[in-house]
Amino acid sequence: MILNRDDIEAMEKRHRTCLINCLSGYKSPMLVGTKSQSGVDNLSLFSSVFHLGANPPLIGMISRPHTVIRDTLENIIETGVYTLNLVDDSFFQLAHQCSARYPQDESEFEGAGIESEFVNDFQAPFVLQSALKIALELKEVKHLEINKTELIIGEIKFIEIDDEILTEDGFADIAKAGAVASVGLDAYHRVELANRLAYAKYSK
Amino acid sequence: MILNRDDIEAMEKRHRTCLINCLSGYKSPMLVGTKSQSGVDNLSLFSSVFHLGANPPLIGMISRPHTVIRDTLENIIETGVYTLNLVDDSFFQLAHQCSARYPQDESEFEGAGIESEFVNDFQAPFVLQSALKIALELKEVKHLEINKTELIIGEIKFIEIDDEILTEDGFADIAKAGAVASVGLDAYHRVELANRLAYAKYSK
Repeated sequence: MILNRDDIEAMEKRHRTCLINCLSGYKSPMLVGTKSQSGVDNLSLFSSVFHLGANPPLIGMISRPHTVIRDTLENIIETGVYTLNLVDDSFFQLAHQCSARYPQDESEFEGAGIESEFVNDFQAPFVLQSALKIALELKEVKHLEINKTELIIGEIKFIEIDDEILTEDGFADIAKAGAVASVGLDAYHRVELANRLAYAKYSK
Repeated sequence: MILNRDDIEAMEKRHRTCLINCLSGYKSPMLVGTKSQSGVDNLSLFSSVFHLGANPPLIGMISRPHTVIRDTLENIIETGVYTLNLVDDSFFQLAHQCSARYPQDESEFEGAGIESEFVNDFQAPFVLQSALKIALELKEVKHLEINKTELIIGEIKFIEIDDEILTEDGFADIAKAGAVASVGLDAYHRVELANRLAYAKYSK
């Protein structure tokens, strides 16, 4: 069926939000680890994390508008560092719980029952059980005036990756680690590697 | 294992690019349909498509640097419209082929053997067999100085979605349509819906 803007606007608000959130397709939900200046560890679930460039290695993610308190965004700006942690099928329910609004003086690690890990004197906390952990340094927060969201751009400082999922050619086989894919606000999926295809070349 | 920046820089260039492209996790590869001002239909595979906001309904995507000819980016700027088309397991190999560099006067639709569809007088072409098609109007191209990439922000004008994958609460069950998830530059995955979780609430 075709849904034009009027049809979409006429949907019940939560249903419309659900639909629009689904349209960009699969994402890797990522737990973002930060530490506040007062020393509280924070963990938040983000689903709009994307590759921005390989050289320098940059990752982008979108934060909702900074019109209310956003612990993660504020911690990133204040400390300049954060972590991304891959979510797999052994703890995606706990990760989902981190999208709840916790009091500012309470750590989602404890609240959701997720164990933290500190690596290499890096200030921000990692998720111990995650098969892929990325340490990022903030490069830029770009305010997107069009809808008041914030584009957070970070540069990769180091990664911690389970040996079994890193192949010789640099491929990170996250499906092998049981990493889940999300769609929209609440749907989690099992994923299985199907094919790796050869570099596409033009031919007549 | 831990890979710090020196370890990553020391990797063979293609392996490093492969790894960095994998770190943001699963994506929905999307075929981007455009038409040039001279009338050539263009189809290109993008994997950094993300939700930017539900109200107004905005989708973001990243284009590589505009330092060489980028047909898709140029067509979007010139015509102000483009389409996103979900890729499923019935044609992901053909979609992958659209990442090859075709001559400017040749349509990837014909080159890769993908049938186009025109809907509602919208100027940009859709992919006929796609279960989810999104018509977008360009709102803004934001140059990201940090690595010369371009953030393309579009507003949803209408969508065409297979009846069977749209549920009553607005959820688009793209896994049911066989939509594939990609990781990095060349890996395609089968996906199966596991769970939809309730809205997360804080409780002591």
